Amino acid sequence: MFTDEYFMKLALQEAVAALEKDEVPVGCIIVSNNRVIARSHNLTETLNDVTAHAEIQSITSAAGYLGGKYLIDCTLYVTLEPCVMCCGALNWAQISRVVIGARDEKRGFINKNLSLHPKTEVVTGILENESSQLLLDFFKSKR
Amino acid sequence: MFTDEYFMKLALQEAVAALEKDEVPVGCIIVSNNRVIARSHNLTETLNDVTAHAEIQSITSAAGYLGGKYLIDCTLYVTLEPCVMCCGALNWAQISRVVIGARDEKRGFINKNLSLHPKTEVVTGILENESSQLLLDFFKSKR
Repeated sequence: MFTDEYFMKLALQEAVAALEKDEVPVGCIIVSNNRVIARSHNLTETLNDVTAHAEIQSITSAAGYLGGKYLIDCTLYVTLEPCVMCCGALNWAQISRVVIGARDEKRGFINKNLSLHPKTEVVTGILENESSQLLLDFFKSKR
Repeated sequence: MFTDEYFMKLALQEAVAALEKDEVPVGCIIVSNNRVIARSHNLTETLNDVTAHAEIQSITSAAGYLGGKYLIDCTLYVTLEPCVMCCGALNWAQISRVVIGARDEKRGFINKNLSLHPKTEVVTGILENESSQLLLDFFKSKR
């Protein structure tokens, strides 16, 4: 039951919550021992804050829950490949796994030749189509 | 009077405030029209949060003050070269100038071949010795 697809669906629900606030629809959750310990979505417009990406909020939230700043034995599910800022944050957090929906060829960390922490396993392409379709529809509606 | 050295001294005061909390001593301020609109220091231990770097806090704070997420006509002074996370955040903020005290050869963005926004002017080496001495003393005391 607790597959990567299962948890990515929860991240997608967060992305939909962002969309409903007219935010770029990116959602994220952090899971520890099959338990969701943080969930968030992009709030950069609502909060007037470029740092309010879904990942940054979830990292802060999960660390608060765990009572420690390192996200050992945690998996972050995010519907869009993290940007440079979020890649840096995930590195500091030494998170165990990062599972990515859609790739972000332009602003994602992978094409910038950045990598996550050596301890971090990265998986891409989980519910990729659903994740990118949400984004495509959003940007189309803005044109 | 309002030189880069003048403002970097205020950032150094913030770094000292971090030191007094046993935090890695990095301080930061953001200036708009010669007015300090944000000041902060590293709080990663105090807040148990890897994202609580001085720059991230000041970006959030300055955007709150300005009522907009882009830090146009703003200068950020920071005593240590920003890391990948903070480089990414400064990029999103499209800040006009970044003035750096000490270089961070290992974790700073410059040696990662990352750059700030094309609109951003970068100045390094302002009160470099004072900034790095604070850090050296801190890490020496930890050994």
